[in-house]
Amino acid sequence: MPSLLKRVLFQVGDAMNERTITYSSVSNDGHCISIRPFTKPTGEKEEKFPIEWAFACTNKDVKVTKLSETSMKQDFDFLLDTNRYLAGEHEKSGDIVETQWDTWESGLILEHGVVYPHGKDKEGVAFKELWQPLDCSIAEETILASSERNDVSRSIVLRTEKSEKWDGLIIVTGRYVQGILLDKTKSDVTGISILRLVETGAMDSFSPLVVQGENTHKFPKTYGKLELEDVIKLGGIGWEVIECHNQ
Amino acid sequence: MPSLLKRVLFQVGDAMNERTITYSSVSNDGHCISIRPFTKPTGEKEEKFPIEWAFACTNKDVKVTKLSETSMKQDFDFLLDTNRYLAGEHEKSGDIVETQWDTWESGLILEHGVVYPHGKDKEGVAFKELWQPLDCSIAEETILASSERNDVSRSIVLRTEKSEKWDGLIIVTGRYVQGILLDKTKSDVTGISILRLVETGAMDSFSPLVVQGENTHKFPKTYGKLELEDVIKLGGIGWEVIECHNQ
Repeated sequence: MPSLLKRVLFQVGDAMNERTITYSSVSNDGHCISIRPFTKPTGEKEEKFPIEWAFACTNKDVKVTKLSETSMKQDFDFLLDTNRYLAGEHEKSGDIVETQWDTWESGLILEHGVVYPHGKDKEGVAFKELWQPLDCSIAEETILASSERNDVSRSIVLRTEKSEKWDGLIIVTGRYVQGILLDKTKSDVTGISILRLVETGAMDSFSPLVVQGENTHKFPKTYGKLELEDVIKLGGIGWEVIECHNQ
Repeated sequence: MPSLLKRVLFQVGDAMNERTITYSSVSNDGHCISIRPFTKPTGEKEEKFPIEWAFACTNKDVKVTKLSETSMKQDFDFLLDTNRYLAGEHEKSGDIVETQWDTWESGLILEHGVVYPHGKDKEGVAFKELWQPLDCSIAEETILASSERNDVSRSIVLRTEKSEKWDGLIIVTGRYVQGILLDKTKSDVTGISILRLVETGAMDSFSPLVVQGENTHKFPKTYGKLELEDVIKLGGIGWEVIECHNQ
């Protein structure tokens, strides 16, 4: 089923906090995107690029293993990754990030794992992220009462066609659109475009929640009448519909 | 302003989890009530009494000290306390629980403190609770977008009149009613009644969210037309309106 998860806590070592309004969208077929804008960017670096991190994966880039009725393992080989991009690496690194996801009785989901920012042979850093599932069919941030509510929501995924210049992914779950577009000819923040929209009223009537970067006009404006394998040409980019569950 | 906080995390020592749907209501004048029902009661004890804890305080029982723009101290001397009640103590203990509340940039609030279940001279147990403010004017659990949304919501508090038998408090914030009623002639779970209602449609059209105990019929059925110092007589109980901000 499509889902929309809001992060409520980020813990590194013992320090817990949440400075962002982070949404992760997971499509019906298992593609995913996570966009993590700071609420109150502080300091020159954050003001210049007010995004803690953004990444996207197709379902080929995430290996999901069920551990129990309430627990699963997810191994990520990030397809798009703003941190890697800003380090000048525009191809998948092959560094797998292993995470475990435990669903609590209250419905919240605790993700935990270890990252190795200094290499797998060096000491890792433990992290925890707590996720609140939202009802993606409602434009106001509403806590998911029953997963059946999201079952009937649309799930649409668009991927940029092969290009020397552009690499992007957009996921629509319910009323929420999230997209990342990277300009592979660059490796600084000017090459990163990020969009989060919410459909507030009638179909394709969107309000922007996050608009970051110089090329957000290259994201499609409408998602209401797409079919699988459609290609939307826009500003030199071809966006191909790789998943389309229209409800 | 009235508020409705939903707990998303409870951590004792290093172990984090959330097994309840806990709401804490805080009235405009600073009276408060917290009701913590298990989502999936497990084992004989929880099935018999599926409430982790419930407590209530008037504003005289909580000392609030501002530490900074985003941080405050709250010292609780619980007025009603199901744990203390079940231990056979029906009067305030005078044991102050000191807590600190830090508001994060995302709007979530981290409460942390130390409790001394074995006495203040013994080692304490550190705890953390993470709170998500909800929009109390909406019947579906909706994350609070702006505190101004709750500013315009009603805030009503009822307290039992002096009685040898009954001790109770009810708080209405927006569409949410929470109440605790204790029978002081008992000291087991049969003497505890707990109610949580949400007004789903027109005024005083409620759906029950939590109904626990033998005396929930002694809670008022309507809250729409109250005035300060009104007394509602019901099944031998006098409920006095001690706060009334009707919007």
